[in-house]
Amino acid sequence: MKATFLYGPRDIRFEERDEPKILKATDAIIRMSATCVCGSDLWPYRGIQKITEPTPMGHEYCGIVEEVGNAVKTVKPGQFVIGSFCISDNTCPNCRAGYQSGCQNLEFMTGAQAPIARVPLADGTLVATPELPSDDLLPSLLAVSDVLGTGWFAADAANVKPGSTVVVVGDGAVGLLGVLSAKQMGAERIIAMSRHPTRQNLAREFGATDIVTERGDDGVARIKELTKGIGANSVLECVGTQESMMQAIRSTRPGGSIGYVGVPHGAQLDREQLFFTLVRLHGGPAPVRRYLPDLIKLVLDRTINPGKVFDLVLPLDQVAEGYRAMDERRAIKALLRP
Amino acid sequence: MKATFLYGPRDIRFEERDEPKILKATDAIIRMSATCVCGSDLWPYRGIQKITEPTPMGHEYCGIVEEVGNAVKTVKPGQFVIGSFCISDNTCPNCRAGYQSGCQNLEFMTGAQAPIARVPLADGTLVATPELPSDDLLPSLLAVSDVLGTGWFAADAANVKPGSTVVVVGDGAVGLLGVLSAKQMGAERIIAMSRHPTRQNLAREFGATDIVTERGDDGVARIKELTKGIGANSVLECVGTQESMMQAIRSTRPGGSIGYVGVPHGAQLDREQLFFTLVRLHGGPAPVRRYLPDLIKLVLDRTINPGKVFDLVLPLDQVAEGYRAMDERRAIKALLRP
Repeated sequence: MKATFLYGPRDIRFEERDEPKILKATDAIIRMSATCVCGSDLWPYRGIQKITEPTPMGHEYCGIVEEVGNAVKTVKPGQFVIGSFCISDNTCPNCRAGYQSGCQNLEFMTGAQAPIARVPLADGTLVATPELPSDDLLPSLLAVSDVLGTGWFAADAANVKPGSTVVVVGDGAVGLLGVLSAKQMGAERIIAMSRHPTRQNLAREFGATDIVTERGDDGVARIKELTKGIGANSVLECVGTQESMMQAIRSTRPGGSIGYVGVPHGAQLDREQLFFTLVRLHGGPAPVRRYLPDLIKLVLDRTINPGKVFDLVLPLDQVAEGYRAMDERRAIKALLRP
Repeated sequence: MKATFLYGPRDIRFEERDEPKILKATDAIIRMSATCVCGSDLWPYRGIQKITEPTPMGHEYCGIVEEVGNAVKTVKPGQFVIGSFCISDNTCPNCRAGYQSGCQNLEFMTGAQAPIARVPLADGTLVATPELPSDDLLPSLLAVSDVLGTGWFAADAANVKPGSTVVVVGDGAVGLLGVLSAKQMGAERIIAMSRHPTRQNLAREFGATDIVTERGDDGVARIKELTKGIGANSVLECVGTQESMMQAIRSTRPGGSIGYVGVPHGAQLDREQLFFTLVRLHGGPAPVRRYLPDLIKLVLDRTINPGKVFDLVLPLDQVAEGYRAMDERRAIKALLRP
């Protein structure tokens, strides 16, 4: 088969590799129905996160189980499954507390931008649908694997409740699905920070009530203006840069909560500055496994349509174009069909 | 009258000044029954926090109202009152949300290490007791003003609940009263990190079930050992240094909460490191005003005795010795009697 590897900055290659095999009794082998490029893949793609060797890419996935190891009990060949980008046993104390992304046996999924992939700890990581889903649901089911699960965690970590006023910093796919998540959780007012008309439109479609195009001091001033001078209860930080985190902190009212899911790179927080803001901070890699059953149900019920973030669909062998389109912000998110 | 001023590093002077007067209609003038030296006073005392001019010191106070401005309605001359170190109007949206330390008209109390002090925004800052308290309750009532209120906020921000496992980083007066607060909130296990026998004893008296003397990697390993390898639900950071904050972060389980109240100075948090810990952070200057009525009641009922942190009592004119004793860790906390 051919699979996706990153060789260095902006050097994506789709090249021949052996098909993955069961290595441990807890593994499953999945034939991909759909996979995609993640915003976090752009960090190493842009050379901001260094890689030292050709790296198998892809951690968002759904597909049909081909084979399982002897110890796997909850999924079987022929089933359609969705897994988290975090590989977890789902039995350790951290998993049982709902923090599968802090599993004591945590691994991160790799190699999903391929027709076939190996998923370790299959019982703790994968969830099967009751039956094979119809093809039009694939984008939304794929979204659950990371991008929706991450936006959902951002809203959950930011303590979004019915009636909340919410600010979403970041108009990438995670931010947009943060809007959708806040809406599902009953937020009354959802302010999306975005400068891009197509993303603004999708934000509105997902439930944004206000759009703020300003950034920095002007952005903070605009948020204050929209929140009676006090800032928002709940702010979702869905970028990961220093600028976006400060935007989030300064947009939050004292005692309000920030859910941050943008992967930070080398950034520092000034503790003294943070101290006097009285905000609550929670975030990190999303424990998607906790949310999988509920989110899959919302998709199968057609209550939500998170797959709309995929505005580019490519055959898997054109994966390099998917990276380019997202890097240049020509696409919000690229879905890849094997 | 004579009052306390800091002129520079380790240069405390008790010198003649005019008595404070009502400046605004919302002011009250208080005759101190007791005041004290705060751990945070040691930052400028040690020269770590720069001062540019002789600075009036003291922000913990209780005493008898001498005079009130025309607009003051809730306290009157002759009443015994306790106030927060944060001056707040207690009517703005942030105050109404319980974050009086983020009041839109916030000021910080100064000049309380004196026989008489002016308290701005008296209605929003002071709480009167039903009657004049007996003298033996003064230390505990004084403690409510900041050090207990701050320890209480640390425990509250760290989400301490009945049955919680709690770690307290810092064996200063705030940390020790964090132990007392966690105990009051129903914590089942309270691990105090302390190397000082007298402080360990007080921690045990306040409710600590375990003492950890190790620090750094060894301290983290010991906490993990005591918490089945996963870390604590709730960690109180009551120091403010980089070392203590890292100790707190590394002692917390994924999804667990850190309440941090140690005033940080110039310290940075590595956001990437923080991201993967999945901890919750909340803290800042304590909204003591929120807790005043309940904490005063617990003291008057003699349910709690936070005044035990005062292991040195001095006449106010020996205030400089109070600073020295705390700086040299000869005393946990020095109470000053005018």
